[in-house]
Amino acid sequence: MRTPVDLPKAYRLINHGPTVLVSARHGGRSNVMAAAWVMALDFDPPKVALVLDKATYTRELLLASGHFAISVPCAAQARLVTALGTHSGRDADKLSDFQVPLLDEPTAASPLVGGCVAWLDCERVPEPEVEQRHDLFVGRVTGAWADARVFDGGHWHFERAPAGLRTLHHVAGGHYLAIGEAID
Amino acid sequence: MRTPVDLPKAYRLINHGPTVLVSARHGGRSNVMAAAWVMALDFDPPKVALVLDKATYTRELLLASGHFAISVPCAAQARLVTALGTHSGRDADKLSDFQVPLLDEPTAASPLVGGCVAWLDCERVPEPEVEQRHDLFVGRVTGAWADARVFDGGHWHFERAPAGLRTLHHVAGGHYLAIGEAID
Repeated sequence: MRTPVDLPKAYRLINHGPTVLVSARHGGRSNVMAAAWVMALDFDPPKVALVLDKATYTRELLLASGHFAISVPCAAQARLVTALGTHSGRDADKLSDFQVPLLDEPTAASPLVGGCVAWLDCERVPEPEVEQRHDLFVGRVTGAWADARVFDGGHWHFERAPAGLRTLHHVAGGHYLAIGEAID
Repeated sequence: MRTPVDLPKAYRLINHGPTVLVSARHGGRSNVMAAAWVMALDFDPPKVALVLDKATYTRELLLASGHFAISVPCAAQARLVTALGTHSGRDADKLSDFQVPLLDEPTAASPLVGGCVAWLDCERVPEPEVEQRHDLFVGRVTGAWADARVFDGGHWHFERAPAGLRTLHHVAGGHYLAIGEAID
């Protein structure tokens, strides 16, 4: 169900503002965290910007490896997203504790999270000063995929899939809104 | 209907990823543009990050004044948002042409757009290098308001209001998704 998305259209996977999972891998360790503060930054080559607190283990892995991935989770994963957003990979092996299924996409530099509806594999664009000052990171998208049941032909089609496949939009404290109906 | 929002909770007005309108005023000229690439950057003091292309007139006004405002439009304004995202204030007086109602909030440094459901008044935090390199701007939120029909007690309550008051989430080319149902 994971089909490639043309890179110049990769921004459309997060343009509607979903909360995402950020993953990174280095030296045999992987970690995944939840992040609502992420946005597209450029079309072609596609870039993204995201906020990663200094306390996060994922940030450490990202800085060590120079790579990270964004997975776009869906409503059926709300409980998992909250768990991944409230526990640190520093204190526990979150992936094992929460049974996070990682997809080993051969062309991706970082692990992708299974059960999600879209994925962006990214390479860090070093911006050491704003990383330090604002916890703000820039990445260039090097690979993009989506679940063809909900994203096809460059557009989301949530209306034809089960409600559990809709993207999640975090407000605060584990309270989410699912994405709704199309307006043209 | 415009009621103040505590600044440490201001991030919740955009945490779920709505497409927004960015406005700025300088030397008697005001302008408003649509922007999907915006996110929260910090809780307290609240900050935001957003992308403003070099070609935009709003960017010029923002740089000249040091201030900007974010208005969060709703489904009833989809046509207006598309118009404000596809025409430049350089070529025409968009505010007059599209009859954009500006609210003169006395405590805000920039004009707010009427008919929206939330507003953030912001002061530019100068980051000249990333502004130039990535078109990325940082702002500190100095005032926040929401329409109490849909945002109250620090949370969105779209379920109790007309569908036209739901936030808009742009995918591409004037195609939007409205925000949907709550998931706890």
